[in-house]
Amino acid sequence: MGARALVLFAHGARSASWAAPFERLRDMVAARSPGVDVSLAFLELMSPRLPEQVAALAAQGVDDVTVVPVFLGQGGHVLRDLPLILDELRLAHPGLAIRAVGAVGEDPAVLRAMTDYCLSALPSALA
Amino acid sequence: MGARALVLFAHGARSASWAAPFERLRDMVAARSPGVDVSLAFLELMSPRLPEQVAALAAQGVDDVTVVPVFLGQGGHVLRDLPLILDELRLAHPGLAIRAVGAVGEDPAVLRAMTDYCLSALPSALA
Repeated sequence: MGARALVLFAHGARSASWAAPFERLRDMVAARSPGVDVSLAFLELMSPRLPEQVAALAAQGVDDVTVVPVFLGQGGHVLRDLPLILDELRLAHPGLAIRAVGAVGEDPAVLRAMTDYCLSALPSALA
Repeated sequence: MGARALVLFAHGARSASWAAPFERLRDMVAARSPGVDVSLAFLELMSPRLPEQVAALAAQGVDDVTVVPVFLGQGGHVLRDLPLILDELRLAHPGLAIRAVGAVGEDPAVLRAMTDYCLSALPSALA
Protein backbone atom coordinates (compact mmCIF):
# COMPACT_ATOMS: atom_id res chain seq x y z
CA MET A 1 0.00 0.00 0.00
CA GLY A 2 1.34 3.42 -0.98
CA ALA A 3 1.43 6.69 0.85
CA ARG A 4 -1.72 8.45 1.95
CA ALA A 5 -2.52 12.12 2.26
CA LEU A 6 -5.12 14.33 3.91
CA VAL A 7 -5.78 17.65 2.19
CA LEU A 8 -7.62 20.39 4.09
CA PHE A 9 -9.44 22.32 1.40
CA ALA A 10 -10.28 25.96 2.21
CA HIS A 11 -11.66 28.90 0.27
CA GLY A 12 -8.69 31.27 0.28
CA ALA A 13 -8.73 35.05 0.74
CA ARG A 14 -6.78 38.15 -0.20
CA SER A 15 -5.54 38.79 3.33
CA ALA A 16 -2.60 36.54 4.27
CA SER A 17 -3.73 36.57 7.92
CA TRP A 18 -6.85 34.71 6.84
CA ALA A 19 -4.92 31.45 6.48
CA ALA A 20 -3.61 31.39 10.07
CA PRO A 21 -6.37 29.26 11.65
CA PHE A 22 -6.22 26.83 8.72
CA GLU A 23 -2.46 26.47 9.21
CA ARG A 24 -3.04 25.83 12.91
CA LEU A 25 -5.66 23.23 12.01
CA ARG A 26 -3.26 21.56 9.58
CA ASP A 27 -0.53 21.46 12.25
CA MET A 28 -2.93 20.05 14.87
CA VAL A 29 -4.13 17.33 12.49
CA ALA A 30 -0.57 16.48 11.37
CA ALA A 31 0.57 16.14 14.99
CA ARG A 32 -2.10 13.49 15.51
CA SER A 33 -1.64 11.55 12.26
CA PRO A 34 2.00 10.44 11.95
CA GLY A 35 2.70 8.82 8.61
CA VAL A 36 -0.01 10.80 6.81
CA ASP A 37 0.93 13.76 4.63
CA VAL A 38 -1.33 16.61 5.83
CA SER A 39 -1.52 19.76 3.74
CA LEU A 40 -3.67 22.77 2.91
CA ALA A 41 -5.04 23.62 -0.52
CA PHE A 42 -7.29 26.44 -1.66
CA LEU A 43 -10.14 27.04 -4.07
CA GLU A 44 -8.99 30.51 -5.05
CA LEU A 45 -6.87 33.56 -4.11
CA MET A 46 -4.23 31.50 -2.26
CA SER A 47 -1.66 28.87 -3.20
CA PRO A 48 -1.51 26.00 -3.68
CA ARG A 49 -4.82 25.41 -5.43
CA LEU A 50 -6.27 21.94 -4.97
CA PRO A 51 -5.28 20.52 -8.42
CA GLU A 52 -1.72 21.79 -7.96
CA GLN A 53 -1.43 20.27 -4.49
CA VAL A 54 -2.87 16.91 -5.57
CA ALA A 55 -0.46 16.80 -8.55
CA ALA A 56 2.43 17.46 -6.18
CA LEU A 57 1.28 14.67 -3.87
CA ALA A 58 0.89 12.24 -6.78
CA ALA A 59 4.41 13.14 -7.97
CA GLN A 60 5.66 12.29 -4.46
CA GLY A 61 4.14 8.80 -4.71
CA VAL A 62 0.94 9.39 -2.75
CA ASP A 63 -1.82 7.14 -4.09
CA ASP A 64 -4.68 7.84 -1.69
CA VAL A 65 -6.01 11.34 -0.98
CA THR A 66 -8.79 12.35 1.41
CA VAL A 67 -10.09 15.90 0.99
CA VAL A 68 -11.76 17.65 3.96
CA PRO A 69 -13.60 20.85 3.01
CA VAL A 70 -12.81 23.35 5.76
CA PHE A 71 -15.95 25.33 5.08
CA LEU A 72 -18.74 26.24 7.51
CA GLY A 73 -21.53 25.68 5.04
CA GLN A 74 -22.18 23.32 2.15
CA GLY A 75 -22.59 26.07 -0.41
CA GLY A 76 -21.78 26.07 -4.10
CA HIS A 77 -18.06 25.71 -3.48
CA VAL A 78 -18.50 22.41 -1.67
CA LEU A 79 -21.55 21.10 -3.54
CA ARG A 80 -20.62 22.17 -7.08
CA ASP A 81 -17.02 23.34 -7.46
CA LEU A 82 -15.36 20.60 -5.41
CA PRO A 83 -16.99 17.60 -7.19
CA LEU A 84 -15.96 19.10 -10.57
CA ILE A 85 -12.37 19.56 -9.39
CA LEU A 86 -12.33 15.97 -8.07
CA ASP A 87 -13.65 14.62 -11.39
CA GLU A 88 -10.86 16.44 -13.24
CA LEU A 89 -8.29 15.15 -10.76
CA ARG A 90 -9.48 11.56 -11.25
CA LEU A 91 -9.05 11.95 -15.02
CA ALA A 92 -5.62 13.54 -14.61
CA HIS A 93 -4.40 10.97 -12.05
CA PRO A 94 -6.05 7.63 -12.85
CA GLY A 95 -3.84 5.74 -10.38
CA LEU A 96 -4.90 7.94 -7.48
CA ALA A 97 -7.79 7.18 -5.13
CA ILE A 98 -9.37 10.49 -4.14
CA ARG A 99 -12.43 11.11 -1.99
CA ALA A 100 -14.01 14.03 -0.13
CA VAL A 101 -16.06 14.13 3.06
CA GLY A 102 -18.66 16.73 4.15
CA ALA A 103 -17.80 20.26 5.26
CA VAL A 104 -16.37 20.60 8.79
CA GLY A 105 -19.18 23.03 9.67
CA GLU A 106 -21.73 20.25 9.19
CA ASP A 107 -20.12 18.03 11.84
CA PRO A 108 -22.26 17.82 15.01
CA ALA A 109 -19.26 18.08 17.37
CA VAL A 110 -17.96 21.16 15.53
CA LEU A 111 -21.43 22.70 15.71
CA ARG A 112 -21.53 21.98 19.46
CA ALA A 113 -18.15 23.64 20.02
CA MET A 114 -19.30 26.67 18.01
CA THR A 115 -22.47 26.82 20.12
CA ASP A 116 -20.40 26.83 23.32
CA TYR A 117 -18.25 29.63 21.93
CA CYS A 118 -21.29 31.75 20.97
CA LEU A 119 -22.74 31.34 24.47
CA SER A 120 -19.40 32.25 26.06
CA ALA A 121 -19.48 35.52 24.10
CA LEU A 122 -22.50 36.79 26.03
CA PRO A 123 -21.77 39.31 28.79
CA SER A 124 -21.18 37.40 32.03
CA ALA A 125 -24.52 38.45 33.54
CA LEU A 126 -26.12 36.14 30.99
CA ALA A 127 -23.62 33.30 30.89
CA MET B 1 -31.56 46.72 32.26
CA GLY B 2 -33.05 46.33 28.79
CA ALA B 3 -33.16 43.40 26.46
CA ARG B 4 -30.01 41.78 25.13
CA ALA B 5 -29.30 40.13 21.82
CA LEU B 6 -26.71 37.83 20.29
CA VAL B 7 -26.19 38.19 16.55
CA LEU B 8 -24.37 35.44 14.65
CA PHE B 9 -22.67 37.26 11.79
CA ALA B 10 -21.90 35.17 8.69
CA HIS B 11 -20.66 35.91 5.20
CA GLY B 12 -23.68 34.94 3.11
CA ALA B 13 -23.71 33.12 -0.23
CA ARG B 14 -25.77 32.81 -3.39
CA SER B 15 -26.92 29.27 -2.62
CA ALA B 16 -29.78 29.18 -0.08
CA SER B 17 -28.53 25.80 1.20
CA TRP B 18 -25.40 27.56 2.43
CA ALA B 19 -27.27 29.07 5.38
CA ALA B 20 -28.46 25.73 6.80
CA PRO B 21 -25.59 25.10 9.28
CA PHE B 22 -25.77 28.72 10.45
CA GLU B 23 -29.51 28.33 11.08
CA ARG B 24 -28.80 25.15 13.04
CA LEU B 25 -26.14 26.99 15.03
CA ARG B 26 -28.57 29.83 15.76
CA ASP B 27 -31.21 27.33 16.94
CA MET B 28 -28.71 25.47 19.15
CA VAL B 29 -27.51 28.73 20.73
CA ALA B 30 -31.07 30.01 21.23
CA ALA B 31 -32.09 26.76 22.94
CA ARG B 32 -29.37 27.31 25.50
CA SER B 33 -29.86 31.06 26.09
CA PRO B 34 -33.48 31.67 27.12
CA GLY B 35 -34.24 35.38 27.42
CA VAL B 36 -31.64 36.36 24.83
CA ASP B 37 -32.71 37.25 21.30
CA VAL B 38 -30.49 35.11 19.04
CA SER B 39 -30.45 35.89 15.32
CA LEU B 40 -28.41 35.57 12.14
CA ALA B 41 -27.17 38.46 10.03
CA PHE B 42 -25.02 38.52 6.91
CA LEU B 43 -22.26 40.59 5.37
CA GLU B 44 -23.53 40.19 1.82
CA LEU B 45 -25.68 38.14 -0.58
CA MET B 46 -28.22 37.14 2.11
CA SER B 47 -30.75 38.95 4.30
CA PRO B 48 -30.85 40.45 6.80
CA ARG B 49 -27.58 42.36 6.57
CA LEU B 50 -26.02 43.24 9.91
CA PRO B 51 -27.07 46.97 9.97
CA GLU B 52 -30.64 46.01 9.08
CA GLN B 53 -30.79 43.34 11.80
CA VAL B 54 -29.31 45.63 14.46
CA ALA B 55 -31.80 48.39 13.53
CA ALA B 56 -34.64 45.88 13.90
CA LEU B 57 -33.33 44.81 17.32
CA ALA B 58 -32.98 48.42 18.47
CA ALA B 59 -36.55 49.13 17.32
CA GLN B 60 -37.68 46.16 19.45
CA GLY B 61 -36.07 47.72 22.54
CA VAL B 62 -32.83 45.74 22.61
CA ASP B 63 -30.06 47.87 24.11
CA ASP B 64 -27.14 45.44 24.25
CA VAL B 65 -25.90 43.50 21.22
CA THR B 66 -23.07 40.95 21.07
CA VAL B 67 -21.87 40.03 17.57
CA VAL B 68 -20.16 36.67 17.00
CA PRO B 69 -18.43 36.39 13.61
CA VAL B 70 -19.20 32.89 12.35
CA PHE B 71 -16.12 32.84 10.15
CA LEU B 72 -13.29 30.32 10.13
CA GLY B 73 -10.55 32.87 9.63
CA GLN B 74 -9.96 36.45 10.73
CA GLY B 75 -9.68 37.81 7.20
CA GLY B 76 -10.59 41.20 5.86
CA HIS B 77 -14.30 40.69 6.55
CA VAL B 78 -13.72 40.25 10.27
CA LEU B 79 -10.71 42.54 10.68
CA ARG B 80 -11.75 45.41 8.40
CA ASP B 81 -15.40 45.24 7.30
CA LEU B 82 -16.93 44.33 10.66
CA PRO B 83 -15.28 47.14 12.71
CA LEU B 84 -16.44 49.69 10.10
CA ILE B 85 -19.99 48.35 10.25
CA LEU B 86 -19.91 48.48 14.07
CA ASP B 87 -18.66 52.10 14.04
CA GLU B 88 -21.55 53.07 11.77
CA LEU B 89 -24.01 51.20 13.97
CA ARG B 90 -22.75 53.01 17.08
CA LEU B 91 -23.30 56.36 15.34
CA ALA B 92 -26.75 55.32 14.14
CA HIS B 93 -27.83 53.88 17.50
CA PRO B 94 -26.12 55.90 20.25
CA GLY B 95 -28.19 54.25 23.00
CA LEU B 96 -27.12 50.77 22.00
CA ALA B 97 -24.13 48.93 23.49
CA ILE B 98 -22.61 46.79 20.72
CA ARG B 99 -19.50 44.63 20.84
CA ALA B 100 -17.95 41.85 18.76
CA VAL B 101 -15.81 38.88 19.78
CA GLY B 102 -13.24 36.96 17.70
CA ALA B 103 -14.15 34.60 14.86
CA VAL B 104 -15.47 31.18 15.90
CA GLY B 105 -12.69 29.50 13.89
CA GLU B 106 -10.09 31.05 16.21
CA ASP B 107 -11.57 29.38 19.31
CA PRO B 108 -9.33 26.56 20.62
CA ALA B 109 -12.25 24.22 21.35
CA VAL B 110 -13.68 24.74 17.86
CA LEU B 111 -10.23 24.07 16.38
CA ARG B 112 -10.01 20.86 18.45
CA ALA B 113 -13.41 19.66 17.22
CA MET B 114 -12.38 20.41 13.63
CA THR B 115 -9.14 18.47 14.18
CA ASP B 116 -11.10 15.46 15.42
CA TYR B 117 -13.35 15.66 12.37
CA CYS B 118 -10.39 15.81 9.96
CA LEU B 119 -8.82 12.77 11.59
CA SER B 120 -12.11 10.87 11.45
CA ALA B 121 -12.15 11.46 7.68
CA LEU B 122 -9.09 9.29 7.13
CA PRO B 123 -9.77 5.76 5.85
CA SER B 124 -10.22 3.47 8.85
CA ALA B 125 -6.85 1.74 8.37
CA LEU B 126 -5.30 4.99 9.53
CA ALA B 127 -7.76 6.12 12.15
